[in-house]
Amino acid sequence: MNQDRTGDVRTEGYITDGFWSRYIELVRDVVVPYQWEVLNDRVPDAAPSHAIDNFRIAAGEKQGDYYGMVFQDSDVAKWLEAVAYLLRRQPDATLERQADDTIELIARAQQPDGYLNTYYICNTAEPRWSNLCECHELYCAGHMIEAAVAYFEATGKRRLLEVMCRFVEHIDAVFGHEAGQIAGYDGHPEIELALMRLYEVTGNERHLALCRFFVDERGRQPHFYDREWEKRGGTHHDFGAGGDGVQPFMLHDKGYSQAHLPVYEQDRAVGHAVRFVYLCTGMAQLAQHSGDERLMAACRRLWDNMATRQLYVTGGIGAQAPRESFTCDFDLPNDAIYGETCAAIGLMFLARQMLMVETDRRYADVMERSLYNNVLAGMALDGQHFFYVNPLEVDPKVLGDNLVLQHVKPVRQRWFTCACCPPNLARLIASLDRYVVGCADNTAFVHLYIGGDYALPLADGTLRLHQQSELPWGSNVSMTVQADNAVNATLALRIPAWAAGFSLDINGEASDISPGDNGYLSIERQWVDGDRISLSFEMPIRRVYPHRAVRHDAGRVALQRGPLVYCMEQADNGEQLHNMALYQGGTLETAEGSDELEGMTLIRAAAVRDAEADSDSLYRFDSAPMKSECTATFIPYFAWANRGEGEMRVWVREVR
Amino acid sequence: MNQDRTGDVRTEGYITDGFWSRYIELVRDVVVPYQWEVLNDRVPDAAPSHAIDNFRIAAGEKQGDYYGMVFQDSDVAKWLEAVAYLLRRQPDATLERQADDTIELIARAQQPDGYLNTYYICNTAEPRWSNLCECHELYCAGHMIEAAVAYFEATGKRRLLEVMCRFVEHIDAVFGHEAGQIAGYDGHPEIELALMRLYEVTGNERHLALCRFFVDERGRQPHFYDREWEKRGGTHHDFGAGGDGVQPFMLHDKGYSQAHLPVYEQDRAVGHAVRFVYLCTGMAQLAQHSGDERLMAACRRLWDNMATRQLYVTGGIGAQAPRESFTCDFDLPNDAIYGETCAAIGLMFLARQMLMVETDRRYADVMERSLYNNVLAGMALDGQHFFYVNPLEVDPKVLGDNLVLQHVKPVRQRWFTCACCPPNLARLIASLDRYVVGCADNTAFVHLYIGGDYALPLADGTLRLHQQSELPWGSNVSMTVQADNAVNATLALRIPAWAAGFSLDINGEASDISPGDNGYLSIERQWVDGDRISLSFEMPIRRVYPHRAVRHDAGRVALQRGPLVYCMEQADNGEQLHNMALYQGGTLETAEGSDELEGMTLIRAAAVRDAEADSDSLYRFDSAPMKSECTATFIPYFAWANRGEGEMRVWVREVR
Repeated sequence: MNQDRTGDVRTEGYITDGFWSRYIELVRDVVVPYQWEVLNDRVPDAAPSHAIDNFRIAAGEKQGDYYGMVFQDSDVAKWLEAVAYLLRRQPDATLERQADDTIELIARAQQPDGYLNTYYICNTAEPRWSNLCECHELYCAGHMIEAAVAYFEATGKRRLLEVMCRFVEHIDAVFGHEAGQIAGYDGHPEIELALMRLYEVTGNERHLALCRFFVDERGRQPHFYDREWEKRGGTHHDFGAGGDGVQPFMLHDKGYSQAHLPVYEQDRAVGHAVRFVYLCTGMAQLAQHSGDERLMAACRRLWDNMATRQLYVTGGIGAQAPRESFTCDFDLPNDAIYGETCAAIGLMFLARQMLMVETDRRYADVMERSLYNNVLAGMALDGQHFFYVNPLEVDPKVLGDNLVLQHVKPVRQRWFTCACCPPNLARLIASLDRYVVGCADNTAFVHLYIGGDYALPLADGTLRLHQQSELPWGSNVSMTVQADNAVNATLALRIPAWAAGFSLDINGEASDISPGDNGYLSIERQWVDGDRISLSFEMPIRRVYPHRAVRHDAGRVALQRGPLVYCMEQADNGEQLHNMALYQGGTLETAEGSDELEGMTLIRAAAVRDAEADSDSLYRFDSAPMKSECTATFIPYFAWANRGEGEMRVWVREVR
Repeated sequence: MNQDRTGDVRTEGYITDGFWSRYIELVRDVVVPYQWEVLNDRVPDAAPSHAIDNFRIAAGEKQGDYYGMVFQDSDVAKWLEAVAYLLRRQPDATLERQADDTIELIARAQQPDGYLNTYYICNTAEPRWSNLCECHELYCAGHMIEAAVAYFEATGKRRLLEVMCRFVEHIDAVFGHEAGQIAGYDGHPEIELALMRLYEVTGNERHLALCRFFVDERGRQPHFYDREWEKRGGTHHDFGAGGDGVQPFMLHDKGYSQAHLPVYEQDRAVGHAVRFVYLCTGMAQLAQHSGDERLMAACRRLWDNMATRQLYVTGGIGAQAPRESFTCDFDLPNDAIYGETCAAIGLMFLARQMLMVETDRRYADVMERSLYNNVLAGMALDGQHFFYVNPLEVDPKVLGDNLVLQHVKPVRQRWFTCACCPPNLARLIASLDRYVVGCADNTAFVHLYIGGDYALPLADGTLRLHQQSELPWGSNVSMTVQADNAVNATLALRIPAWAAGFSLDINGEASDISPGDNGYLSIERQWVDGDRISLSFEMPIRRVYPHRAVRHDAGRVALQRGPLVYCMEQADNGEQLHNMALYQGGTLETAEGSDELEGMTLIRAAAVRDAEADSDSLYRFDSAPMKSECTATFIPYFAWANRGEGEMRVWVREVR
């Protein structure tokens, strides 16, 4: 194992940000401990997890039956991964012991041949690797690999890494084109990105080659899902609907799992949104490490379709609840959206990875948009309640009766039966430093303005940056260089698309450097200890207008300030938000939030409200609604639904 | 059997209307003959029906298995009912022979004890009357009763009436509160209104009492569906999803079939829209004939909720595809709507019946709104293609990928596997004369302005009216009295809500009679042969505005002229209809349609279109769309999608 191999691109960071530290602490103090209790079935009012018990049963240390989703193991993996990031940030003996004990349990559940998946270990009647299409076997492996890599990086402990390397060896033997091997892949991408993370740590070319195998097999004809289904005798994993003999819908909707075409031929974001971003992340990693330009071109095409045709202004993806999936270009319903928290998190994985290959503001802008809006909205301000679905328009009155909207919740829930989002949020926030900076050769990139201490290993030596940021409320950022020796390097600072302008000074002197085509401001110099950069953005309230093809938002406007997208809530504006409209060119002013929104910057906007009297008549002739002037209050989207149930709306009509 | 009993409320009519005759002829020449071929499985490209063969198998005259929906018999019944109306209008020996032969076949399929339902006769393993909740046994009986009544009224032939009276006797013995009887009711209301139609012909009090039984049992606790399900041993009729042991969703969603509460306690339109209007129609008939004020009060409450909270401007009901059902007050999505053709037809049944009990314009206005818009839109101009679902906003580009909208078709289809709507349209249009006029005591009511000859039996003698009408294109109506003897009577003419004014003259003299509170203009006089009434409506293009609580239409307007609601189509206005807006108070002019729309009145409206250039960017800051002036063309909603696939939109933004 060669730990140095990718040292040249590994950055380190410790976030000390005024805005984000609070969330990291919530993850540490609330989310991860709560999740541990849930995994151990010690929370009476939460849905049973059984995830730890499944490992105990698989290890032969407990009697009983497997319980939970077929991918229940991944909850343990995500928890371990979040723990790893927390431990890297700050030692915690209790947490580390819990993790070590869990890892030992996992190791004991591993089968003599290296196999590790509690569902199939417990349910011996179902042959392993017989239903890749539906049963998440490699998906679970992938999450555990991610946990293993993170835990090794955080603690230096190799136990779980070795367990997972053994499992990967087993997988490598099972899959392939030789006789007796399976030429297939998982219905839910994840193993691909996990193998690449493993490869980054191990440098083992078999790990890269196995990822390549899974990527290349996907979507080939004759189709693996069909072959597998026939071989299995036409059985279907029962997720609660249908039984044997019923064809899994994944067989006729192969785009659901991005298996409708070889990835090199795909050019639109289709299917399950989380699967799409996970797959593309693995593809981009593979492209980066293999230098495969054709694969990278596919990543760019898919990114472009998603980011310029199917992305919500909140950074959410997945326009429909059926199959938690994309629909088609410019189809972005605000109320029926899925916008899963996990999908926006996966989009951040992908954006980060695209930035690894080519530094371009468009990736970082989307990453920031998702982070500050859809992703952050996934968690309540108390850190104890979560959204799975993130709508841009809600009327709680209709949610009980309108079945098309039944996936939408008006307030965040404590936990979920399919608890993918809270643990995903935990691992994302706990590892947020990994998204802030990057480096390539002798250039250090600052993608996000999140305060902290970052170490950037460059060709000429390590550059240490102490970043302070007022974002998202203020617009000043400063960075101080900490270096034992002078470092000749380029520091490239992203100028966000939301910035109406900026000023830069270096050691107190104004600079007139302009951003390059990639949207980054490149400062090339010999950096010495104490060098100081001040970057100040113009951060006015900006009106956002949709592409003309987006029918749901035609005639409407959204408000954004810095990275934050805003919304109106009933708590501030009363009922029937649909009857409010902003004046084109009308006054927009910032205001201070209070109570639950203490410390936040709100927006007050000159608006008009339809004000006819209530009527018994559903339709009336000739008389357009009377209008009355009013002031609309907007709050940051991420903070919605922290004051009880009420209407919410991001896109608001605009009138002249 | 007392044929005279309700002669005092039976009107006769023969439509000779310029607009509607064409549709009646289409039903006669195209729809009913085509349907006969379908029922006999002689249309190669249509979904197999097997409905006639089911009767042959049940009669023991053919080998084979039952095929089709559990309610396949009702297709034959609806066809027979439509045939009856056509024969009443005009003799047709071929058609009558087909009907008589079919009736004989039905009679031969009837069991010795009077039972008649081919699904249960063919599938002897399933006990009769064991799954009322799901299996439409009484629903099919109801449709055949309606056919029997209509055929008897049209031809005087009693064969089918006697068959169905025998079946009703059997049903009467099976259902009740005595030991061994079933205290239950059908999941799909229909038998109630059918029994009342039968009662109107037979005067047999048992028929009314049986209807009363089914109405009163509905929604009682302990709940019949639960008792029945337990008694059956927890089996579930498989409509293609789930199997035994799965609880029918109707058990936990009892409102789906309006069985959540006793009907006297219901006050909102809920559940499956067709079931709702069928049930209410039966309730209103029972209230009429029994004088039950409490029941009539329930009908009014339910009507009011539906008509003032849950009715589309097109006269459609059923806002959601899941369960083809109502959602909740003021929730009227234009694109995801169900708006089933059958539901709007059922709404006409109900409106007509409410008018039987109390003459009030609000019922007739809704009846006319449904007829000229949602109902008529269900059929193509060629009479050969049909909509099941009637949206108010369509973008064909998204229909393939957006699963929430997968029930919406961009153009009418040839036929349906579940072919309820085309036969329902056929029987409605063939019997349209039944909706035009009504009478009570010594008052003759004209509800609809559809040209024809109508005979109104009043206390003082029969009044014959020859009506000529320019509607929906022109606004002049005239009526000539034909009477052998003078008749002292009141003629009550509805003044539609869409009329901005009217002028009336009687025998050439202007009259200044004002409409009463019920919206009808009452003319009391001694009518003599040759009396002539001219009624001229002000029929400007009117802007329609929604109730302020309807969020989907806020800031939008619809156009209506006379009874016709209008829409924009891509064929006239190009793509991206969402980017067009009307000017508040802007010019609205009529225009003549051409080609497929020859003879129709179109509307041209001063409008504005967002006109920014296409962009690669999904969102942009600050720059509101450029506007350009344009003229929007609107066509009658009923005529949409007769010129190929394209966008369509009823509610259009309005700007100042």
